[in-house]
Amino acid sequence: MLQGLDERTASIYAPIRPQLSLVEERLGSLRDTTPDYLEPLLDHVLDSGGKRIRSAITLLAADFYPHEPDNPVIMAAAVELLHLATLIHDDTVDDSDLRRGRPTVSSLWGKHVAVLFGDFLFATSATFVCDTNNVRVIRRFSETIMELATGEMAEYFNIFNLEQAQERYHDRIYRKTASLFRTAGETGSILGGAAEPQIQAMCDYGYNIGMAFQMVDDLLDVQGDSTKLGKPVGTDLLQGILTLPTIMLMERFPDDNPVKALFNDRTEDGHVRRALDMINNSGIVKDCYQIIREFCDKATQSLDIMPDCDARRSLLALPEYIRDRSR
Amino acid sequence: MLQGLDERTASIYAPIRPQLSLVEERLGSLRDTTPDYLEPLLDHVLDSGGKRIRSAITLLAADFYPHEPDNPVIMAAAVELLHLATLIHDDTVDDSDLRRGRPTVSSLWGKHVAVLFGDFLFATSATFVCDTNNVRVIRRFSETIMELATGEMAEYFNIFNLEQAQERYHDRIYRKTASLFRTAGETGSILGGAAEPQIQAMCDYGYNIGMAFQMVDDLLDVQGDSTKLGKPVGTDLLQGILTLPTIMLMERFPDDNPVKALFNDRTEDGHVRRALDMINNSGIVKDCYQIIREFCDKATQSLDIMPDCDARRSLLALPEYIRDRSR
Repeated sequence: MLQGLDERTASIYAPIRPQLSLVEERLGSLRDTTPDYLEPLLDHVLDSGGKRIRSAITLLAADFYPHEPDNPVIMAAAVELLHLATLIHDDTVDDSDLRRGRPTVSSLWGKHVAVLFGDFLFATSATFVCDTNNVRVIRRFSETIMELATGEMAEYFNIFNLEQAQERYHDRIYRKTASLFRTAGETGSILGGAAEPQIQAMCDYGYNIGMAFQMVDDLLDVQGDSTKLGKPVGTDLLQGILTLPTIMLMERFPDDNPVKALFNDRTEDGHVRRALDMINNSGIVKDCYQIIREFCDKATQSLDIMPDCDARRSLLALPEYIRDRSR
Repeated sequence: MLQGLDERTASIYAPIRPQLSLVEERLGSLRDTTPDYLEPLLDHVLDSGGKRIRSAITLLAADFYPHEPDNPVIMAAAVELLHLATLIHDDTVDDSDLRRGRPTVSSLWGKHVAVLFGDFLFATSATFVCDTNNVRVIRRFSETIMELATGEMAEYFNIFNLEQAQERYHDRIYRKTASLFRTAGETGSILGGAAEPQIQAMCDYGYNIGMAFQMVDDLLDVQGDSTKLGKPVGTDLLQGILTLPTIMLMERFPDDNPVKALFNDRTEDGHVRRALDMINNSGIVKDCYQIIREFCDKATQSLDIMPDCDARRSLLALPEYIRDRSR
C-alpha cells in the first residue's frame, strides 16, 4: 500500500519511511505463519489500501529519543493489525457490505469466518505486542481492546436513543476510535525511550487527534460524497446513531426536527434527507469544524514540550491533514 | 457456582478450595468495573453453571512449590474468562440457541452484542493476565487465543470434507480445546514457582487431559442423552464436522457408510441416525475409550516427576473423572 501514497501523506511520513516499510514486512510475514486457508483473507485485509495512519503516529511518537529500533516497528504493526481486526468485527455486526469501496470480509466469507478471523487477528496483534517484552505497553494494548469493544457496544445500546448529550458522544468516540490513537502515541513514546512527561504529551496528542479523526468521519457521513467515501451517506442516522452534527441539530431545534421524527417512527420517510439538509444549510457544519479545530489545537499544543525534529514537524502537520479529509 | 459442586468434584477441588473462591470473587468484581448495560450479560455468563475445570487445573498446577499467592488466582480467573468468551463466539457463529440447557448470549441479545461482548471478555481476560507481570505467561495466553480461533476455523473450513485423518483431528482439537488446558497447566506451573522440567510436565499434563476432554465431548455427541447433555446429539455430524468416532467409522467402512452419504447429499435423510447406530453397535465406542485412556495415562505419567502432595493427588484423580463424564 505504501506505493500508493499521495504527495502530502508521503511528505508527512518521510521521517519514518524505512520503519513503515518494516511494518509492512512484519504484517506481510503473517502469511508465512498462518494456515494456508487463511491466505486469501490475509491478502484481502492487508491490501485494503489503508493509509496506516495509526502506525505512522506510533512510529513518529517513537522518533524523538535514542531507543531500541525494533520495538516501535513491532508496536506499529500491532496497532495496525488491531485496527484491521476491529474493522472486520464492526462490518460483521453492522452487516456492512462495503468498506473503502471494497467488499467486506463478512460479505465475502460469511459472518462465521469473519468473527473467528477477527478473533485470530486480535490475538495475533496481542502476540506482536508481547515481542516488545514491555508489560506496561502490553497492558495498555489489552485495555484498548476492551475500550474498542465497549465503544461499539455503547453505540449499539444507544441506538434510537434521543437522550445523548455531547458528553456521552465524546466518551463513545474516545472508546471506539481515540483510544487506539492514544495508544499509538503513548506506546510509541514509551518504546521510543521518552521520559514520563513526554509520554504523557504523546498520549494527549493521540487522544486529541483521535477525537478529531472520528468527528471528521462523522461529519463526512452527513455531508460527504458517497462515491468519494466508498460508502453511502447518512448511514449513522439511518442506523439510529447520533453523532456530533445530529446532536447539535437536536440541541438547536429541540422541539421539532427530523431526527426526533426518525427515532420515533423508525421508518425513513425522508427524515434523513431533511436532517442532512438542515445540517448542511445551518451553521452546524461550521460549528462542528470549530470543535474539531479545538481538538486539533490541543493535539498541537501537547507537542510544545517535545524537542524540535523531523518527527515533531510531521506530527504538527497531521492535524490539518486529518481536518482536510472532509473538504 | 461453587455451591453446586457434587461430592466427587468437591473432593478433587479440596486442596484449592480457598483459591477457587478468590477466582469467583475476581470474576464477580468485573461487575463493578463494567458499564451498567453489560451487567445482565455478565450475570448470565458468570452464573452459567460451569465446573471451572480449567481454573482448577491452573490452581492445582500452581500448588506444588512456594510462590506469590495472587498470581495463580489471577491466571485461573483469566483462563476461565477466556473460556467463557470463546463459548460466546462459538455459539454465535454456530447459531446455537442452547448451552448447558440455557439460552446462549447470541439467542438472548443477538449476534451483534454477542460478538462485541465476546471481544470485551477476550480483552478483559488478557488484561487480567497482565496483572501477573509475567511476559512469558502473557505471550502464552495470546498464542492460546490464536490457537482457539484457528481451531474453530479449521473445523469450519473442513466441514463436509471427507479427507480428514485422525492426525488432522488431533491438530484441530488441540487448537480448539487442549491448547487452553495446556495453558492452564503451563502458566499455573510457571506462576507457581516450578522449575523448567516441572513446568514442561504440567504443560504435557494439560495437553493430554485437554485432548481426552474434547474426545469425551465428541463421544458424548454420538452416544449421549440429549436431556442430560442439555443439547441434541449427532449435531457435529449434522453440521458436517468429523470427530474421532465418525473418522473411525469412515476408516472401518471405507466403501459405503452413512457419513459419506450425508456429506455427499448434504441432506439428513436418516443418515445421522444410521451413523450413530453403527458407531454404537460396533466396537468403535470401545476403541474411542481406548484412545481416550491413552491420553489420560500420558497425563498421569507426566505427574511422575512432581512431588507428592494434595494437588498431585487431585491431578491424578482428574483424568478418570473426565473419562466418567460420558458413562
